[in-house]
Amino acid sequence: MRKVIFDTDPGVDDAMALRFLTRRPELDLLGVTTVHGNADIDTVTRNALFLKDRFGFPAPVSQGSGVTLLNRQGSPAGHVHGSNGLGDIDIPDTIRSTVDLRRGHRFIIDLIRANPHEITIIAVGPLTNLARALDKDREIARLVQGVVVMGGAFGMHGHTGNVSPVAEANISNDPEAADVVFTAPWPVTIIGLDVTQQVVMDAAYLERLRRDGGEDGQFLWDLSRGYQAFHQRTRRLDGIFTHDSLAVAYAVAPELFTIRRGPVRVVCGGLASGQTIQKPKQSPFPVGAWDAHPEQSVAVDVDVAGVLALYAGTFIPAGPVQAHR
Amino acid sequence: MRKVIFDTDPGVDDAMALRFLTRRPELDLLGVTTVHGNADIDTVTRNALFLKDRFGFPAPVSQGSGVTLLNRQGSPAGHVHGSNGLGDIDIPDTIRSTVDLRRGHRFIIDLIRANPHEITIIAVGPLTNLARALDKDREIARLVQGVVVMGGAFGMHGHTGNVSPVAEANISNDPEAADVVFTAPWPVTIIGLDVTQQVVMDAAYLERLRRDGGEDGQFLWDLSRGYQAFHQRTRRLDGIFTHDSLAVAYAVAPELFTIRRGPVRVVCGGLASGQTIQKPKQSPFPVGAWDAHPEQSVAVDVDVAGVLALYAGTFIPAGPVQAHR
Repeated sequence: MRKVIFDTDPGVDDAMALRFLTRRPELDLLGVTTVHGNADIDTVTRNALFLKDRFGFPAPVSQGSGVTLLNRQGSPAGHVHGSNGLGDIDIPDTIRSTVDLRRGHRFIIDLIRANPHEITIIAVGPLTNLARALDKDREIARLVQGVVVMGGAFGMHGHTGNVSPVAEANISNDPEAADVVFTAPWPVTIIGLDVTQQVVMDAAYLERLRRDGGEDGQFLWDLSRGYQAFHQRTRRLDGIFTHDSLAVAYAVAPELFTIRRGPVRVVCGGLASGQTIQKPKQSPFPVGAWDAHPEQSVAVDVDVAGVLALYAGTFIPAGPVQAHR
Repeated sequence: MRKVIFDTDPGVDDAMALRFLTRRPELDLLGVTTVHGNADIDTVTRNALFLKDRFGFPAPVSQGSGVTLLNRQGSPAGHVHGSNGLGDIDIPDTIRSTVDLRRGHRFIIDLIRANPHEITIIAVGPLTNLARALDKDREIARLVQGVVVMGGAFGMHGHTGNVSPVAEANISNDPEAADVVFTAPWPVTIIGLDVTQQVVMDAAYLERLRRDGGEDGQFLWDLSRGYQAFHQRTRRLDGIFTHDSLAVAYAVAPELFTIRRGPVRVVCGGLASGQTIQKPKQSPFPVGAWDAHPEQSVAVDVDVAGVLALYAGTFIPAGPVQAHR
């Protein structure tokens, strides 16, 4: 079993990824840290605690940063995730679980130091907590097993940003933090829009989850109503992109992804702010801004049917799920 | 016949494009303006005058800007185009043609004013002259038929820059000028690396031009020796990309190109400096930095065999040239 920290801003697809993660036998969730992003920090922390109640996992939830690395306010996305961050489903007033007393970045450092070389961080929100943890204790970079990030867009199929033509929301919400995380000497795998927008859970797929996926399947369906409507409204897509769950899928089944190696930098400020740019290993020109930094892994392609079957199969255990799309 | 101004920094592929242009019956070359880029302004102007001698066209050559719009020095590319800018072929000490006395941007304004609604500007270097012309006389934007630019990279097939992962040399050499040109209210068509790197004149193609293309064919072959070696050295490509000639090809046969419409901006400064970014017409998000600007045309695909046949057929008139590649 792989020990995991889940750094998250729930968020509809965060919640879908968290349930996926906690039901996978290969993964052992040690802690959840929250970060500003899809909603403000109080809301996403409340949501994480609600999900801990709902899913019944033992791992502590720690509150992370409510502002960016440069102390700017975040950019909540109520039009995507609903005003309560979870698709406006009913959330009880009373939540039993309580927050861990350590700040998110400190909690991350403590868990890594207590489990040297064993932890995989799966980060599916802005990367503020990870950057702050590196800032306080640079040594942790040598002590993790790896970092899997959902974020960014690398223009593999034209520019495919979702907040600008070139920028993805998680990275755009704290580009400076992302640049710190991607240039640190730890192994990062980046699952960006180039692959997550290839993987569509369509209406029939979600309906099947609801019908055959038990209580969790129903919950995932309830959760995703507003999210699906958002995709319909803005993209005329009869389904939803599979963003955060793909970072979990990579931790479970990396063989479903095609990886390209090379240093990655993030544009901070200006027209392209938040754009992630990899210099592939074989480039015909030298570029100082990249060449001094460690190679990281960027997902450039994905086995769409494979990851959809992996996700559905987690909730519908009766035999292999039909390859979808 | 379409009246043309050719704005250029010769440059091996500039020279190949200029010969192509002057041999096409559809195009009527009214003037050549030079600009810093592949070599310094004195060198490229000397080269343009040499090519006027060599090719024997009547259009005047006017010297344009030797520095960027913000008065920065250019970045000559001797490693690509040779120390004399023309692949280090022999250039005679004495050149008969003389330069027009008007500065490049003034010459552009005069030609447009003298031929309202009739002129197509084909610009294959940094866009400094065009930006300066717009600055002196904004009205010309309404008086040209169109502008065809070779430059930029739009990440249609992953990031494909040639001076950074995201930036192409012409645009990178004066991003502020390019942003002025692309956001002006004239119809611009941008032929970027996304298409020019698809069109390879391979060794056999160039050899055929030399064998069957008469004096011009031999000259094109001589000119391209160092350029081909550069492609071999840096890309292991047994041939050359067809950059500037594709802008001419668009002016002759636009039906060979697939176009995407939408406003285009250029990143000025930072990691992504020189990157061209289009916001496609159908985008799921509003972006103020693009939305206020006119839609332009970006070439996203090209009929490779078609443009190669068009170019070769210009020099080898004995019947249609075999489709190549």
